[in-house]
Amino acid sequence: MKTINVGLIGFGTIGAGVAKILSDNQGIIQKRLGATVRLAKIADLDIETDRGVQIEDGVLTTSVDDIIDNPEIDIVIELIGGYEPARAFILKALNNGKHVVTANKALLAKHGDELFGVVDEKRLSIGFEASIGGAIPIIRSIREAFVANRIQSIEGIVNGTANYILSKMSDENCDFDVALKEAQEKGFAEADPTFDIEGIDSAHKITVLARLAYGASVKCEDVSISGITNITAEDIECAREFGYRIKLLAISKCDGESIDIRVHPAMIPSDHPMANVNGVLNAIRVCDDMMDENILVGHGAGALPTGSAVVGDVIEIARNIISNAQDRVPASSFQNSEIKPIPLKDISTIESEYFLRFNIQDKPGVLSKISGVLGNHGISIESMIQRERGEKGDAVSLVMMCHRSSEKNIQNALKEIEQLDMVCGKSNLIRVEK
Amino acid sequence: MKTINVGLIGFGTIGAGVAKILSDNQGIIQKRLGATVRLAKIADLDIETDRGVQIEDGVLTTSVDDIIDNPEIDIVIELIGGYEPARAFILKALNNGKHVVTANKALLAKHGDELFGVVDEKRLSIGFEASIGGAIPIIRSIREAFVANRIQSIEGIVNGTANYILSKMSDENCDFDVALKEAQEKGFAEADPTFDIEGIDSAHKITVLARLAYGASVKCEDVSISGITNITAEDIECAREFGYRIKLLAISKCDGESIDIRVHPAMIPSDHPMANVNGVLNAIRVCDDMMDENILVGHGAGALPTGSAVVGDVIEIARNIISNAQDRVPASSFQNSEIKPIPLKDISTIESEYFLRFNIQDKPGVLSKISGVLGNHGISIESMIQRERGEKGDAVSLVMMCHRSSEKNIQNALKEIEQLDMVCGKSNLIRVEK
Repeated sequence: MKTINVGLIGFGTIGAGVAKILSDNQGIIQKRLGATVRLAKIADLDIETDRGVQIEDGVLTTSVDDIIDNPEIDIVIELIGGYEPARAFILKALNNGKHVVTANKALLAKHGDELFGVVDEKRLSIGFEASIGGAIPIIRSIREAFVANRIQSIEGIVNGTANYILSKMSDENCDFDVALKEAQEKGFAEADPTFDIEGIDSAHKITVLARLAYGASVKCEDVSISGITNITAEDIECAREFGYRIKLLAISKCDGESIDIRVHPAMIPSDHPMANVNGVLNAIRVCDDMMDENILVGHGAGALPTGSAVVGDVIEIARNIISNAQDRVPASSFQNSEIKPIPLKDISTIESEYFLRFNIQDKPGVLSKISGVLGNHGISIESMIQRERGEKGDAVSLVMMCHRSSEKNIQNALKEIEQLDMVCGKSNLIRVEK
Repeated sequence: MKTINVGLIGFGTIGAGVAKILSDNQGIIQKRLGATVRLAKIADLDIETDRGVQIEDGVLTTSVDDIIDNPEIDIVIELIGGYEPARAFILKALNNGKHVVTANKALLAKHGDELFGVVDEKRLSIGFEASIGGAIPIIRSIREAFVANRIQSIEGIVNGTANYILSKMSDENCDFDVALKEAQEKGFAEADPTFDIEGIDSAHKITVLARLAYGASVKCEDVSISGITNITAEDIECAREFGYRIKLLAISKCDGESIDIRVHPAMIPSDHPMANVNGVLNAIRVCDDMMDENILVGHGAGALPTGSAVVGDVIEIARNIISNAQDRVPASSFQNSEIKPIPLKDISTIESEYFLRFNIQDKPGVLSKISGVLGNHGISIESMIQRERGEKGDAVSLVMMCHRSSEKNIQNALKEIEQLDMVCGKSNLIRVEK
């Protein structure tokens, strides 16, 4: 039986998951692949800590060169994350003729053009199924299943930390800070959760997905981003009363001319198939001209779900090696020469339905003032709830759902409303996605 | 640019969808594949009817041999359905060295061992993504994404007709016959809907999925089947009151020793991600030892969704042809030599929670009698609703949810209960899947 030798850089949580899968499920891999996948080398700065996986003598090393320069190794797995030295390691591995598997969405979002260019030039493979949605086979589905279809939109709950926090707030009617603290205690949020809760991680992922879906080279810093830190328990409660759930969505829509790409909290109807995607689950919805829609749901993080996506990519590449297939599937889903910048839509030009929350003084005439301003900007109100809290005279919340209107109009109206005497502080806006 | 020549046998609904996709989206296919897929021949007995797709002169033929014996053609698409002559056509195509794409689940369920054997022997490819769940990339996901994982269960809503009828009954509180009639009028159910509503089509699909998931050669006639014809509007209403939805599920669970494989209506909690999968949508949930669960949702039928799965398979095979890759992925997901019969669990040996509905005379003491019989068989009742309808003395419905118990006990209890004087007619049992 043929053996494919794999080198793993980064023996953290996911790295340990990969090692466990290759050890525990070698039998099933052989029955499917007809070959053995051998974890020949693991490089990490820390080779002492017990990761709960048995590793043969001589496999662990502190030197990445033992992998990248090792003529025995066919496939290099990069799981250290971040931009450098991950980028340098991957480039060196490719230049040494090795295929690469990575879960590094930040790197692919920022240096995709460079990395995919080298992969193409060297006629090698790069697998990155684990970089988006953990175990969800979204990369494979776009590259292979929906390959004949003109993809129109991709929307996803692609950050498990943010989804865990929003689900917690929803289940227990607690505020953001409480839910974040619990997520951190349970290991679902990092000590510095900025990337997850501010939507940056989701922006990296939608940038990579836009490349695959539309053949677009998008700069991830051009993606419009807002996170979930402004969402309150009250927003979630009001959303529920209107028949919606609040989710952090990564969204991209392409009309062939330009791409509307953004990350923000959004309200989705409670009978939407993604409305019940709670906790650390992720979900990605792809719409195109032929199959209408496909929604994929699964664990977006965790050692074994993400590890299984890594090993799936290793086996895909192993199959190419065994059958001498080069250039079988272009890494970006499109032939590399077809990848082009496509203009991005400014968010002020989109249209949506909106949920608005205002902090107002509980006085007669406030609703009339606010609805007057909205009306002047061509925005019509679909439904409204005025919530009474505490003593008379305290600030109360006024929440409303608005019919479809332009983002520009709604932003102008909000600016005007926030200047009214009876309106206290910033209002909150949540877009509705159906 | 290289050209891959394809022959299509069967120019019905899906065949026309395939032709439309290959015609409308040739540009996008070229940008992704880097080659042209040319529909060289279409064989059908009727080559006169306009299918709404423009076909070049000389492409249509009434002779299948123009495709199967045509040395120009690389890939044969079989879309005539049924056992014969589909089987004969596919075997002849394979024996002539042609790769095959088919949507024929009935044929694969019944003659899988034979067909996959020939594919393996001839080192050819057979694509059948379109045979299960239409556009849902379930075959690809099992064969490639979850390839390193030990699959433990697959459960799915895999019949759009049955799901449409159940959704209709649920939305409009109407009876089965009314919903079926409307499904037929709208083209979502055939004139003879037996295969769909009796669960036979779902059994074909779960048979094929069990082969891919567990490497099991299952005889589809051994799958335990019950359809949806006994489901009433009242069952659906009661299920909703208990917090559940009723779906026709195809289920297989493998503990490594034996397979529990069955098709029947099941109650799933209303907050389950598959609970909102309504109408003609399909959903398939895969659970394994590494990624926990993945749920895929999409259109399970229709010319374009199913057609796009067919074309996806054509492009996968085209990629193999272009890169000279033979035997890349075994058709059954396992190496053909690893496919073995695995014993099936008799349904009487399973355990489940149960929903029961009895038609009873509205007299004192009935509940005591029935709960007594259940208790004697070790079955405990979780909750109960007694519904009053019509005049005093008429039969009324008694519905209950029972805690986990063995199928054997519940069936024995039902037999005994049905013999009680105050119980009229057959009772209804629906298993709960969580």
